[in-house]
Amino acid sequence: MPQPETLDQPEKTPLVKEVPPKSKDLSAWYNAICYKAELVSLAPVRGCMVLRPYGYGLWERLQAALDERFKATGHENAYFPLLIPESLLTREAEHVEGFAPEVAWVTQGGNEVLAERLAIRPTSEVIIGTMYAEWVHSYRDLPILINQWANVMRWEKRTRPFLRSLEFLWQEGHTAHATEAEASEEVARMLEVYADVAENVAGVPVYKGEKSSSERFAGATHTYSIEALMPDGRALQAGTSHELGQNFAKAYGIEFSAEDQTLQYAWTTSWGMSWRMIGALIMVHGDDRGLRLPPKLAPLEAVIVPIVKGPSEDVTAAARELYATLKRAGLRVKLDERDERPGFKFADWEMRGVPLRIELGANDLAAGTVTIVRRDRERGEEGAKTSVPLADVGKVLPELLAAVGHSLFAQAKDFLAAHTLPATEREQFLRLCRDRAGMIDIPWCNRPECEAAVKAETRANTRNLRPLEGGETLCVACGEPAVVRAYFAQSY
Amino acid sequence: MPQPETLDQPEKTPLVKEVPPKSKDLSAWYNAICYKAELVSLAPVRGCMVLRPYGYGLWERLQAALDERFKATGHENAYFPLLIPESLLTREAEHVEGFAPEVAWVTQGGNEVLAERLAIRPTSEVIIGTMYAEWVHSYRDLPILINQWANVMRWEKRTRPFLRSLEFLWQEGHTAHATEAEASEEVARMLEVYADVAENVAGVPVYKGEKSSSERFAGATHTYSIEALMPDGRALQAGTSHELGQNFAKAYGIEFSAEDQTLQYAWTTSWGMSWRMIGALIMVHGDDRGLRLPPKLAPLEAVIVPIVKGPSEDVTAAARELYATLKRAGLRVKLDERDERPGFKFADWEMRGVPLRIELGANDLAAGTVTIVRRDRERGEEGAKTSVPLADVGKVLPELLAAVGHSLFAQAKDFLAAHTLPATEREQFLRLCRDRAGMIDIPWCNRPECEAAVKAETRANTRNLRPLEGGETLCVACGEPAVVRAYFAQSY
Repeated sequence: MPQPETLDQPEKTPLVKEVPPKSKDLSAWYNAICYKAELVSLAPVRGCMVLRPYGYGLWERLQAALDERFKATGHENAYFPLLIPESLLTREAEHVEGFAPEVAWVTQGGNEVLAERLAIRPTSEVIIGTMYAEWVHSYRDLPILINQWANVMRWEKRTRPFLRSLEFLWQEGHTAHATEAEASEEVARMLEVYADVAENVAGVPVYKGEKSSSERFAGATHTYSIEALMPDGRALQAGTSHELGQNFAKAYGIEFSAEDQTLQYAWTTSWGMSWRMIGALIMVHGDDRGLRLPPKLAPLEAVIVPIVKGPSEDVTAAARELYATLKRAGLRVKLDERDERPGFKFADWEMRGVPLRIELGANDLAAGTVTIVRRDRERGEEGAKTSVPLADVGKVLPELLAAVGHSLFAQAKDFLAAHTLPATEREQFLRLCRDRAGMIDIPWCNRPECEAAVKAETRANTRNLRPLEGGETLCVACGEPAVVRAYFAQSY
Repeated sequence: MPQPETLDQPEKTPLVKEVPPKSKDLSAWYNAICYKAELVSLAPVRGCMVLRPYGYGLWERLQAALDERFKATGHENAYFPLLIPESLLTREAEHVEGFAPEVAWVTQGGNEVLAERLAIRPTSEVIIGTMYAEWVHSYRDLPILINQWANVMRWEKRTRPFLRSLEFLWQEGHTAHATEAEASEEVARMLEVYADVAENVAGVPVYKGEKSSSERFAGATHTYSIEALMPDGRALQAGTSHELGQNFAKAYGIEFSAEDQTLQYAWTTSWGMSWRMIGALIMVHGDDRGLRLPPKLAPLEAVIVPIVKGPSEDVTAAARELYATLKRAGLRVKLDERDERPGFKFADWEMRGVPLRIELGANDLAAGTVTIVRRDRERGEEGAKTSVPLADVGKVLPELLAAVGHSLFAQAKDFLAAHTLPATEREQFLRLCRDRAGMIDIPWCNRPECEAAVKAETRANTRNLRPLEGGETLCVACGEPAVVRAYFAQSY
């Protein structure tokens, strides 16, 4: 399913009159829907975006879902400074090499030219490691389990809403442990949290696994990721969890006296998920009519559209009463009383991806019912419309919302399964990679040279790795002995 | 109650062994308790602080209290970029004059030297006004009611934990309205929200009023504030709400076609509260033993201390069961099983300001009771200790927490009332100002020259103003006709 290359962001938010069909051009559809649905605007500073209230509503609920799970796994939130002195940033050699080309530098404060440049954090291992070195003395001070909600900045050349912007919002977990085994467990636990949120909250199925050495986080000993598949056959990395070994502990001096009185370096980890996850769910769930938002994250769960031709006090009054009832029940619902045709409103809320639409007209009212329309179904599809007694709406809505959520996830799982393609010989493998056919699954040698060769030929590389299932002996890409299974794909 | 001048922050978090008595030296006590209770650490970048988990817990609950009220008054959250191009910042003349000396500038991105400097936001009127100009076309697009949770940066010379730091966390509300009357209402409404949170959540009584013209926000037509009184007789501004008139709308082009088809400029407002509020509640409530946290914000509402001499399986088991029961009931509670003397633990949790301590020893257990100790009372004071049947703890705790909250607020209100001092003649007024006797309340002429003269003589200036109550005719400070009543004080 080849698509034109991604376009760069324009300089000003374009005025979108029509959203082009998603099935024709994912990239054009994606940019158009992000603006038209008022998720984002372009900011008057290159490569930065404004997260508008409707987009922020998605982020707020994603935050809440993650934060709840972080706390349930023993983590606390804290906040560390935005600015990192250059001399501190450069202390972990691999880390600085990875990030320095993307750093924005503060060189003046007020009227003063600074003696040392200050980096705007591209990530916070450095500043947090420095503080952990101050806080940790004894094994009794470990583990430290901290998460930070923050903005970070990476000076990227090409940008797109949610997927890549100079500044973005994310969370970054940073932990320190007395043993390597504990750090490994932590990293695995948080990868599971990410997969849980991606699948059960955002409805986006993912593959979990370890990244290859070429794709590892700068300064990590192991990087794990969750990877989702977009409709154009590109993969999207939606969360990462890193074992940092003792690299940062040595660079920043996180030492502790162990139970046996010896002085040891701590084992640290970090893990992050950003608003990129919102980009993933937009692409995965959307259709030609616009967004289809997963109910657990949707800012609005349902919209009530009164169907009135001319003045109809009864319908208006009933719609308002229903709205008040649902609000009181804690549902996120909106009553659309705009002076527009019902057809206009239907299309507008479909474009904005609201999971359920509640239609209430004179005939419904006479029959004591409403019509509920599910956004996850095609128009005219069985089950797309249900007639529900007015008195039952509050009870039925949560069930229907759950059903929409399951159905969006099931559709996305089917797509992923249909586009996960084992390849058994080299030419077939390279062709599938070039064609963006999906997640191309092969026994692999785990050699950087092999990955680089595949990338040069196809623009695809490994997404993540998992153990061999037995039986495979040779790397499909190069013929050397296989040591893992790997998903290859082009990526965002 | 004169105190030595505030000390500047040291460069590294000092190791605090003993917290000096608050009653002797507020400034030394304040810094010491902020570090000792692990609310903050100093960061390895000048004038910045790390908000540690115990401090962040206070901030998280303050955020929740504000956010809930913002939403209940119709506001939505959004997020705008950190960086503001210099050419944009300089468009509102008064605004840039007020903020330029405090701006941190980004001049390099990656390896590229930027053609135009980018300011790290000291506040976001400029970038948000620019976006509102893009979003607003018709009166139907108004009002826009948006809040942002963000970090901001002001390049200050002298810094102190929570009260003044280069970077700080805050919220900033930004609204646009079709009429001046609506904008005025909004500003008054949000001032009420701040006063409600300060008094009923943080337990800090405040005076509401308008700031004098010298103290107005740069670019505003009216600034209102809530002002609290610290134990050293200095006032602390804890939240501000600004009417911006059409100043920003004109500078950034926020125009709309009104119902009568004319093209008009919008009326905008902004309002903010920061983590400074935490500094206020620390100073207002703390005592010689350390913090006393208002229960609604306290990260821990109660701590359980088992009193065991040698091994006591019964007491340990009962304490753990109580802990589990209270946790399940949704209380924020901790069980302290450290291998330390009970006396050490008592002092430690008192220093950290936990509102209630639950002691459980062998005698208690035999009697089927626990001893609950309130942090708001003096040791030995009536009602400081209560014996409660084990089975009733879950029911009694919320009542006791409410009682502690009311009592902290009542104590603070008494202090404020006792230190709100009307002055009737000039020399007395100037002496009270110089002595930091509290909020010095006079009929005032509302002239900048008069305020400047008082400040030069006493270091005090106006905190906020309110209408004359009738009868007063002359300004106590200068003898000109009085037009308002004003609180004067030295301030943080």
